[in-house]
Formats: sequence, structure tokens, C-alpha cells
Amino acid sequence: MSETILEKTEGRVSYHDSVEEMLKRIREDGMTNVFDRWAAQEKIRCKFCLEGLSCQLCSQGPCRINLKGEQQKGVCGIGPDAMAMRNMLLRNIMGAGTYGHHAYEAFRTLRATGEGKTPFTIKDVDKLKWMCEKVGINTNQDTNKMAIQLADFLEAEMGKDVEEPSVMVEVFAPNKRKQVWKDLDIYPNGVVHDEQNAVASCLTNVDGDHVSLAKKALRLGLSTIYTAQIGLEMTQDILFGTPMPHEVNVDLGIMDPGYVNIVFNGHQPWPGVATIQKAKMQEVQQRAKDAGAKGVRVVGSIETGQELLQRFEVDDVFVGLMGNWLSIEPLLATGTVDVLAMEENCSPPAIDCYAEKYQVTLVGVSTIINLPGLDHMIPYDPSKVDQMADNLIDLAIENFKKRKDKVTPKVPKITQKAIAGFSTEAVLKALGNKLDPLVDVIAAGKIKGVVALANCSTLRNGPQDWNSVNLVKQLIKKDILVVAGGCGNHALEVAGLCNLDAINMAGEGLKEVCNMLKIPPVLSFGTCTDTGRISMLVTELANHLDVDVPQLPIAVTAPEWMEQKATIDGVFAVAYGAYTHLSPTPFLTGAEKLVKLLTQDVEGLTGGKIALGDDPVQVANDIEAHIISKRKGLGLS
Amino acid sequence: MSETILEKTEGRVSYHDSVEEMLKRIREDGMTNVFDRWAAQEKIRCKFCLEGLSCQLCSQGPCRINLKGEQQKGVCGIGPDAMAMRNMLLRNIMGAGTYGHHAYEAFRTLRATGEGKTPFTIKDVDKLKWMCEKVGINTNQDTNKMAIQLADFLEAEMGKDVEEPSVMVEVFAPNKRKQVWKDLDIYPNGVVHDEQNAVASCLTNVDGDHVSLAKKALRLGLSTIYTAQIGLEMTQDILFGTPMPHEVNVDLGIMDPGYVNIVFNGHQPWPGVATIQKAKMQEVQQRAKDAGAKGVRVVGSIETGQELLQRFEVDDVFVGLMGNWLSIEPLLATGTVDVLAMEENCSPPAIDCYAEKYQVTLVGVSTIINLPGLDHMIPYDPSKVDQMADNLIDLAIENFKKRKDKVTPKVPKITQKAIAGFSTEAVLKALGNKLDPLVDVIAAGKIKGVVALANCSTLRNGPQDWNSVNLVKQLIKKDILVVAGGCGNHALEVAGLCNLDAINMAGEGLKEVCNMLKIPPVLSFGTCTDTGRISMLVTELANHLDVDVPQLPIAVTAPEWMEQKATIDGVFAVAYGAYTHLSPTPFLTGAEKLVKLLTQDVEGLTGGKIALGDDPVQVANDIEAHIISKRKGLGLS
Repeated sequence: MSETILEKTEGRVSYHDSVEEMLKRIREDGMTNVFDRWAAQEKIRCKFCLEGLSCQLCSQGPCRINLKGEQQKGVCGIGPDAMAMRNMLLRNIMGAGTYGHHAYEAFRTLRATGEGKTPFTIKDVDKLKWMCEKVGINTNQDTNKMAIQLADFLEAEMGKDVEEPSVMVEVFAPNKRKQVWKDLDIYPNGVVHDEQNAVASCLTNVDGDHVSLAKKALRLGLSTIYTAQIGLEMTQDILFGTPMPHEVNVDLGIMDPGYVNIVFNGHQPWPGVATIQKAKMQEVQQRAKDAGAKGVRVVGSIETGQELLQRFEVDDVFVGLMGNWLSIEPLLATGTVDVLAMEENCSPPAIDCYAEKYQVTLVGVSTIINLPGLDHMIPYDPSKVDQMADNLIDLAIENFKKRKDKVTPKVPKITQKAIAGFSTEAVLKALGNKLDPLVDVIAAGKIKGVVALANCSTLRNGPQDWNSVNLVKQLIKKDILVVAGGCGNHALEVAGLCNLDAINMAGEGLKEVCNMLKIPPVLSFGTCTDTGRISMLVTELANHLDVDVPQLPIAVTAPEWMEQKATIDGVFAVAYGAYTHLSPTPFLTGAEKLVKLLTQDVEGLTGGKIALGDDPVQVANDIEAHIISKRKGLGLS
Repeated sequence: MSETILEKTEGRVSYHDSVEEMLKRIREDGMTNVFDRWAAQEKIRCKFCLEGLSCQLCSQGPCRINLKGEQQKGVCGIGPDAMAMRNMLLRNIMGAGTYGHHAYEAFRTLRATGEGKTPFTIKDVDKLKWMCEKVGINTNQDTNKMAIQLADFLEAEMGKDVEEPSVMVEVFAPNKRKQVWKDLDIYPNGVVHDEQNAVASCLTNVDGDHVSLAKKALRLGLSTIYTAQIGLEMTQDILFGTPMPHEVNVDLGIMDPGYVNIVFNGHQPWPGVATIQKAKMQEVQQRAKDAGAKGVRVVGSIETGQELLQRFEVDDVFVGLMGNWLSIEPLLATGTVDVLAMEENCSPPAIDCYAEKYQVTLVGVSTIINLPGLDHMIPYDPSKVDQMADNLIDLAIENFKKRKDKVTPKVPKITQKAIAGFSTEAVLKALGNKLDPLVDVIAAGKIKGVVALANCSTLRNGPQDWNSVNLVKQLIKKDILVVAGGCGNHALEVAGLCNLDAINMAGEGLKEVCNMLKIPPVLSFGTCTDTGRISMLVTELANHLDVDVPQLPIAVTAPEWMEQKATIDGVFAVAYGAYTHLSPTPFLTGAEKLVKLLTQDVEGLTGGKIALGDDPVQVANDIEAHIISKRKGLGLS
């Protein structure tokens, strides 16, 4: 890190003052917390694991590869490169599988809605028709029937194999990429098919070649985006509306202890939306008032919060987004949460003591979630989501009755404004429904290029969100527009980079464009699941200019990737043809050939590559250099 | 281990003299090998990994849990039990996914055969009709159409979810088990669906509860057997014939360097069967003779070999089975192999130097396989399998031309006889098509009980196959009939326990029954994939007696499990209600509550449990005690 940035981190664990403030209470109360657990683990890290040279998959292990000793291979015979890449592919699979699960829930929700079994309706009929037209479904039919047909189609797409190629890939992939993927033998199938193929490849003594394993990762990245992510985000748009920019409130200061507060945490919006709808009913608010509260509120947490945030106005029922996953323990410590409803990552597993200390009712609302001390399990079922919302409200009111006298609330007085809700449609609308104005400002050098940021938040490369925020500050100063998704996006929203005031932090060219279009220099594009959505904008641009993705002055960054979904987004970006910055460095540094493949050789294959680096100033310079070289390639100064 | 058994292992790495003999050459030639790599790794094992208390999944790791220090949880907050169980579930998923992949290939081969696109035919029409009747497909139609319909049905079954429950489970699960699984909330769906649900549950910060994770493993075990394994084995029976007992040759002595030898290794029989068919043609043999060979031969290696062995007579084209996976390097060192065609595990990744030294052409014949130095890749496609066989024969003849002058062959003069090809149908046929005679001999105590052995071969608990062979010797001496599948079955075949001479090693009661029925005391039931087939026999018995599985005098043992498919077979057995012995001890000993759950508490839930132990004498005594207790429960002395 550069000196000026480094000095600010001293003694801090988070970029955000709200989190720092809550951590004091957490420590005073003697609670286990992610920041202190990090410090403890730092004392006993395994260097083999850090380098990717540890394997514990079979009973002949655990093996370690020690290239300076006699252990050049595992017992089975696997070498360092394949061992590290197989470990990585297994993480990619977990990411792909989780997006696949989210997509599965989305598609069955769409079907159930078409069948009239949910409290939801087809909110964006135009988008439904647009999707149906795209994939060849008859649009001259009843809206609900169309929805059912689309749901069946999208579900089937996830199982597509070589014998019956995916339509979603054909329709949504950039025109010039398809042949590249075919030539490399990484043309994607359905995500469920490719996931199983990859899982079977990871078995002991199946795929022991790092190049082959890496190609499977690239293919799986493509399958994930084209047959899970894009379909599921479009489905969520159809059900809850396509995101359009609007001002929202974020950070822990949005919490008011006087209300019954129901927090939705994870990635999937279903029960959250149903609860917002329900909480708008007078009689529900009255029940909360009868219990001594000022009313019932819904609070967004991490990606579920962002899914709500980008589609719903904040008001007295839905109050905004609290932050990203490292803020969950601090949120619970405010003593203002009545129900934490969790359906996916990140729902950290050691919050049972918070629930007890600060009187929170922990509820699982999916088939995949669980943790010690979970009080209630209401697995998601689209046809029962209305009842789920009732249950959650009941549980929250009951919790409030206990909490109000038991817990002294402590809420940091910090709230930030952000403009959430960008989407390809929103960008096009801002540009007058054509891409030329964007092309023009890029050609004129007012915007040098576009960087997509999609990732998590981690402590490995510094305090919470330090790297994400500082990198983005550097980028916008260099007239690089940032489009953000994921927990990294929440970081930027909470840090104040997604509002119009942030225009002042941008370079002169970007400042001019932002002022003209009334947009922030960082466009909040949603969640990590919106990686697909971001790619749709880039694909539009590439197709519009009739160039291939690697020719564009763009880059991808994941400056604080943490979990496995981020890894599959990352390999997608490389297959897609993007310069892809990753920090922290993935666990593969012990695998020399693999590092060379992913950071150098792959560029000759897909046009994309992985770039490493933990210093935001240096990384921003590297990205700028890349963008300038691509501008030159297109004949731009 | 007991003293008498232990003393025999001194200085040995394998139970088999043939392997010991080849290892001398391997070491003289300075070749890397699995036995010496084991010894090297023993010096640097990680004790955290051995105990299941190491996690390297996210960028906040790698974490280790040190229960005596301040590291009681990972950075995310996961505790020891959930960490170890999540690691285990990930292995289970790899096993389930690989069986799922095998099933996928089986079902599309059946479909392509029905469509007339393969060189295969519907060999067992009765079995096709039987399956169709079972699952509700019209049998009054053309055989090929029926096959296509069954293939479509079976493929769809793998994707079944709670909204549309699996027919395969309904049809093939033991009557009295279904309610137990429903009550425990582990009633299975399709394997692909449950696999994805489990994958998504393993993501960082999703499922942090060891009981919940364990239940997902149990459910996945059931999905695997009922919607992948049973369907795929029945499909292979339909295509290639239901196994019936016949005498075969095994061990490395089956190799003749004067022939062009094509070895099929892995688990899937497709190209092997096509090549056997092709090699029976006079003109193919002639081409080999023209190249200076005595002819072309097909050799079975590990499970692919066993799939062939249980359905084809050995003759001058198909010569038998060489052994299990730890014998692969020794096999290659014989200098007699022209093509090693690999499609699944176990195809160990460090055999490129063997290929070079002993002139072997390495060929991948699936989409999942790869390894450094692979010479050719011909991914399986049912409609091209005929051509694949041609290619393999061409490659083998070309290799022979180089090998014959370059490599001095060295073949151990050791061949063993075995009776392969048992199946539920074969057992029933031997019993006069009813189960009563089996029930009678069990009731009379001539057979005390039945143990199913299904597993791999590992060096962790002693030399190759030492534990499997010695445990089985103890069991049959105690009048316990053994039904075997997997690499452990090959161990017993090669060790001479699957032929009629072995009757002399059995106790008096079992000896009498074996002599009466002319069967060995160990019934070779095929591969690890035949775990489902074995369960079908047990299910027949339970349904016939109108009792539940846990009431039967049976047990399961995996005395040398090695890879991840064995782990999913193991958790299936526990969910199925069986006493399930596992050796080596899985990596979970650091997780106290988890160990108690799996070895004790789960018995109160499913009726099954995991039993540990590495000493074959003690394990046999424990199994006998369990069987006797179950006999008492049924009122038998």
C-alpha cells in the first residue's frame, strides 16, 4: 500500500467508523468477533495451504507438496500445479452451485407467480416480453402463461449439454467471443451440467492436469453467467422491476431501536419482498404499535439488502441497507434487530451468542442455510412465502417485546446517501436510449475506460473495505468510470462514493460527464449476482462497436474477494476476455506453471488474464496502463 | 492389527506378490511410485488436516482450529464440528457428482442405442421390461422406443426436487425406510438437485451447523444410490447383460507381451465393450498379426475391468482383470501395455514417466479425465464409440510396433481364478428363484449374517489390500457371507477369496451352504457402483421379511476406503440403516460432537451408524457382535 493509505489503517479493522464504533461495544461485552478471530488465526496459518500445495481429499492424504524436499508430488502422484488448480476449481464449483441454487429458486418463483401461487405479480411485463422474444418464446399469449413458459425454459437451460446446446449462451454471449470459446474447447453448457462434469473431474485420480482443470474452470464461469446469473437477474427484474437509479440510505445509522426491525440477509429477495408488501398494511403496523413499537420496519443486509435497495424506494417501511458481511456482527450488537432472516451467504456461523446477548431471533429462510443456535427454520417455498412473511413479522413482534426492556440499544449516528439501481436499461435511459453518447465520451477521452468491480469484503489485505474504497478513489480520479456489484459495492455506497457528492473526487473528464448525466462516478449495479448484468452492458458495447471484448478499454477488479462465488465471477471475467485484477492473491502461488498460465499465457487464449496486487495505487496504475493500451488498439488517444 | 497379521506386513507394501515383484523393477528403474510417495508424505503430514480441523476455502483462511489455544473457531466463526463435517460433505459431493456423471453417460448411451446410433444392442430385454414396469413405462411397445423412454425417464429423475418427488426412490427404497427418512427430513430428491443444494450449503457462511450438514450428507447418499447408481447399473445390465457367475482370470499374470494389449481403466464400460466387440473380428486380429503380434487383446483394469469381467467370459480377446488401482503403476512396468484407455478414477496422475519408459500410449476416453503426458484425448460420445474403438486399436497397434523392440517385458507368473458376476438375479437363481432358502440358512445359523464390502484400496492402514483381505478371512471363518464390490472386491478376487477353493477358509456353516450352492464364500458383486445393486438384494430381503433394514443381521464394511465415492457409499449405508465399518478413520477426529453424532447418536435416528477400527480381527469381532445382536432381535439364536 502507498504510505498515505497505509498510515490511515493503523489500529483500524474497518474503513467504516460505524463498524469501529460498534467493535468497542463488542469487545467490552467480551463477544467473539470476526476481527479478533482473524488476529488469532494469523498466528497459526499453514504455509502449504496459503500456497495451494495442500490436499486433504482422500484417505492417502493429507498431502503437502514441498518442492525443496522429496515431496514433489502427492501420494496419488498429483503435482503442484494440478493440486492448486483442483483446489481452486472446487471453490469455483461451490460458487457456480450457489448461483445455480439461487437461479433454481428464481425460476420456480417465476413459475409459481405465473400460476398465481405467490403474493408477487409480473411487475415488468416489458422485460418478460423482451426475454421471451430473445429466447424464442411466443409473446402473443397471456402474461402468466408466458412467465411459466419462460421459467420452464430457464430451468431446462441449466441442464443443457453438448447434445442440446444452450440457447441462453447463443443469445447473450458477445458475438465475437463464441468462436474463441469453441476453438479453446470451453464453450459452455448449462451450469448444472458443467458443474457436475467439473465435480467429477476433481475426484482423486481423475483430472491431474492443471491446464485441463483451468479450462474446466473457465467453461464453468461462462455457464454460470449465461445459464444461471443472467436468467435469474432478469427473472428478478420481471418479478420486482428492473432497477432504476434512486437515492437510498445506508450504514448502521439507519437502525431505529423503537421499531420492530426485520433484517433480511443473504442474496435472495423473496421473503424480503413479501415482508415489505405485508408491512405496508396498516393492520400489521398496528400490531407492532400494540406491542409498544413505533411500527415494523424491513432492513436490508448485504446482498439481499442490495436486491431490495435497487428496486424499492426507501420509506418508513423499508429503510435501506446496513452494509456488507463484515458489518453483520456490529449490526447485531446495536441491539436493534428483532429478526435476522437468512437465506444464503454470508450468514456467519458464530452469531448465536449475539442473538442471546442482544436478543435477536435467528431464522433460516432457505433449504441451504443453517447455523448453531438457529431459532427457527422456515425453508423457502414460493407458494408459502406470504405465510413466511406473516411468521417473520410475528416472530419479530414477539422478539421486540423481549428486547425493548432487556437490551440497551447503541446505534452509531452515521447514515450515508447513495444512488442505487443502475442497470443496462438505466444506463441506456440516461444516455437517451443509445450507446453512442457513451462511446463518444470514451472516444473523446473524458472517460478513459470502465472498470467493473465485483467482490466481497475481506480482512486479508487490510481493514474491511479499505482496499475496495481506496482503489476506486484512485480509479475515478483517473477518469475511469466504475460499475460496482457485490459486497464491494456496499463498501462504496457506505463510503459515500455512490452519490453525487462523490463527483468531486473524480478527474476532470469523468466529473464533466457525471455532472452532465447527473450520475455518480461509481454506478451501483447491485450484487455479485449482477456480474452477469454488468457483462450485458459490456456485451452491448462490444456488439455495438463490432469488436471483441478484449479490445475494449475495460477491466474487472475484485479488490477484496472472499468467498467462492467471487472466484467463479473471476474466472468468468478471464474467459470473457477481461483483464481481471484479484486481491488477495488466491492460494496458488506455490504452483509456478499455473501462475504463469493464469497471469500470462491465458491472455493469448481468451484475451483475458488475472492481474495481482494488493496496493490500490499500484493496481490503479496497472489498470490505467491496460486501459490506455486498449484505447491505442482502437485508435483512441 | 493382531500380531499374526501384523508380522506378515513387515517390509511389504502390498498383499499381492505380483505387485511386490513389479515394485522391484520400478525401484531399479528409478521410477516415482505411489508406495514411495506415501513414505515421503508420511514425514510431513498436517495434524490439523488429519483431524478435520483445517479449512482453506475462503480468502480469510487458511484457518485451523486449535481447541487448546485461542483458535476455537475459524475467522468466519465456524466451529470444529461444522468445519470437519463440511469438509466431509464436500468429499461426499465429489462422490455423488461422479456417480451422477457415470449415470449421465449411461442414460445417454441407452438413448443412443435405442436410436440405433451405437454398436450396442438391448441385450437384456427382460430387464428392460422389468425396469419399465417398475417405473410405469408402457412395455407394450417397440424395445428401442422403450429404451429411449427409460433413458429419458432416468435422466429426468436425477433432477427431481420436492415439488416433483423421485419415482426411483418410491420404487426402490425399502418399504419401511421411507417414513424414517421423511421424519428425519432426509428423504432424497434427484442426485443432481441434492448435489447442488449440498454444494451451495458448503459455501462460506452458509451452513455452519454440523447436524444440518450431516443430514445433507445422508440425504445425498440416498439420492446417489436411488437416482444414479441403481438406474445406471440396471442400464448397463440392459445394454450388456445382467451379471451371472462365471470363472475368470485375474492378477498381473494375465498379461502376455506378445499381444497388442489395450487396457481399459476407470469405471465406465462403453469403449471397452465396443473394443471387445471389434477385436473379435478376424480382420482386426489380422492387422495385429501383420504388425508382428499374436493378436489384439483387451485387458480389464480396476472397475472398468470389473464391469467387463462380470458380464463377459474371458477368452482369447478379453483376458481378465489385472487388479485394483494401486496395481496400475506395477501393471505399466510390466512393459506389456500398448494403450491405457482411461475414463474415470482411478487414473493416477504421475504415470507419464511410465508411459515413456515402458512405451505405453495414454488415452483419455471421457470428458472428465486428464493427466500430464496424455497422448490422445477421445472424449466419449455414444454415437462415436464404434470409431473410438477403431482409433484405440490403431493406436495400440502403432504402439506395439515401437514397444516390441524397445521394452523388455517382465510379467509376474501369477494368475488367480475368481468367480465373478453375482447379482440379485444370480443369487435368486442359485436359490431357485426365491429368498426363503437364504432366510432358512440364516435362521438356522449356518450363515450368521451377511456383510457387504464396498471400497477402494489404500496405504493408510497397511499394505495394499491387507486390511480388506484379512478382515474378510476373519468374517467368512465366522460363517458370515461376504458380498463384495469395488477395488476391495478386486483385492479379494486377486487374493483367491472369490473362488471355490476359498470355501475351505469358511466356517463350518458357511462351508456347507457354499458347497451346496456351489458358490464361493465371497460373492463378487462388481464395482463400487454396484453398492446400489447390493442394496437391492438387502432391500428384497427386508421387504420379504417385512422388517426394516436395521433389524437385519447385516453390516457394511469399507476396510480400505480411499476416495470420495467411497465416502458417499458410506453415508448412504448409514442412512440406509446399516452398521457401517470404515477404515481408515475419516478426517474428523478433532470434532468431538460430530464423532459422537456419526458413531453413536445417528443410530437412534436412522438405525445405522459408523463403526471405526483398523485391526481386522477386532473389526470382525465387532461386526459379529452386531450381527448376533440383530439375530437376537429377530428371535434367532
